[in-house]
Amino acid sequence: MAKLFVLSAPSGTGKSTIASKLLQQIEGIKKIVTVTTRTPRPGESDGVDYFFITKEEFEKRIKEEHFLEYAEVYGNYYGTPKDQVERNLKEGVDSLLVIDVQGAFRVKEIFPSAVTVFLLPPSLEELKRRMISRGYRDSNARLRLETAKKEIPCAREFDYIIINDFVDKAVYQLKSIITASRCERESVLEVLKNVLPSEEIRSLVKGGECYGKKT
Amino acid sequence: MAKLFVLSAPSGTGKSTIASKLLQQIEGIKKIVTVTTRTPRPGESDGVDYFFITKEEFEKRIKEEHFLEYAEVYGNYYGTPKDQVERNLKEGVDSLLVIDVQGAFRVKEIFPSAVTVFLLPPSLEELKRRMISRGYRDSNARLRLETAKKEIPCAREFDYIIINDFVDKAVYQLKSIITASRCERESVLEVLKNVLPSEEIRSLVKGGECYGKKT
Repeated sequence: MAKLFVLSAPSGTGKSTIASKLLQQIEGIKKIVTVTTRTPRPGESDGVDYFFITKEEFEKRIKEEHFLEYAEVYGNYYGTPKDQVERNLKEGVDSLLVIDVQGAFRVKEIFPSAVTVFLLPPSLEELKRRMISRGYRDSNARLRLETAKKEIPCAREFDYIIINDFVDKAVYQLKSIITASRCERESVLEVLKNVLPSEEIRSLVKGGECYGKKT
Repeated sequence: MAKLFVLSAPSGTGKSTIASKLLQQIEGIKKIVTVTTRTPRPGESDGVDYFFITKEEFEKRIKEEHFLEYAEVYGNYYGTPKDQVERNLKEGVDSLLVIDVQGAFRVKEIFPSAVTVFLLPPSLEELKRRMISRGYRDSNARLRLETAKKEIPCAREFDYIIINDFVDKAVYQLKSIITASRCERESVLEVLKNVLPSEEIRSLVKGGECYGKKT
């Protein structure tokens, strides 16, 4: 059964960087490309980082129930398209959704089996530094920092917490979470027909009697 | 909080090999050295692979309640010494216990928070081949194979299942399970004082109010 992994963090923590490095290192998972009305940042491509559309188009898609969830964040719309998530589930491919903290909560409500990961900044100073390096103006950076202070406590509500003090370490930990999740009993039992070469082992695991286990 | 990881498999699946490779690749975890009355195999060292003691000494230690659990397997005693597990827990070091399937069940009863991993052989033919290469006589190999058939269904009762078709892959998956487990919310919140550089972030995660989360 394909899984949905949700990576969330306050603005500026580096969740997009972690996600794109991860996707280069692990197979069987596709990023859900969020739809947004915000302006592309330098280096961002339409259809890869986000789908960039107009506010009018976004509001039309809201009415058409195109989104699993959507929200207005810092004056821009962000939405998670239903069709991508459904397609991945159908194809047996895991999904990675990179989303703000409130979005993560909405997705977890819709998909309680989603595995949620909170990326923590190592310090508020570092978060501020990253916001300034992104060219946010002072008032904007201050607002984002205030929001971050309200979002960081939400780490407690996530399944996993990763601290982004070293990018490679954070990527490695996220990769481990996905790999471990694929080794969970239920996941292995479900895909057994694909992964296990021996029919005999397969039928023992599925239907054999477990020797001596008290139930 | 230090964790106890339990690696179990039918005889001949290669759990010792996987464990020793793992311990070379990951920090913060110590192997629990099992006490046994069986004869050392070529290359096995006392105090590293097992503590090799006499049957009389083993029975004395049973009376002294030296063992967390013990059992007779293929005519030899095997016991998990309490003191090593307790010392690791106290020192905040994770423990890796490599144990037969029934032993794993007993340990999980004593430590319900133990993370249990079942290592599956890729096929019964491969298992047989490995037993012969270990020099077991025909009757002995046949007995072990029959037991394996009764143990393999027990995979369903474990937290994680790893298929030992490729040693490096299996080691990587076990390492991922341990790494992911260390990123679990509860683990991170508990060790937060050690891992997080910023006092500010720490106090937000511990005591701040999570913004907008319905409870």
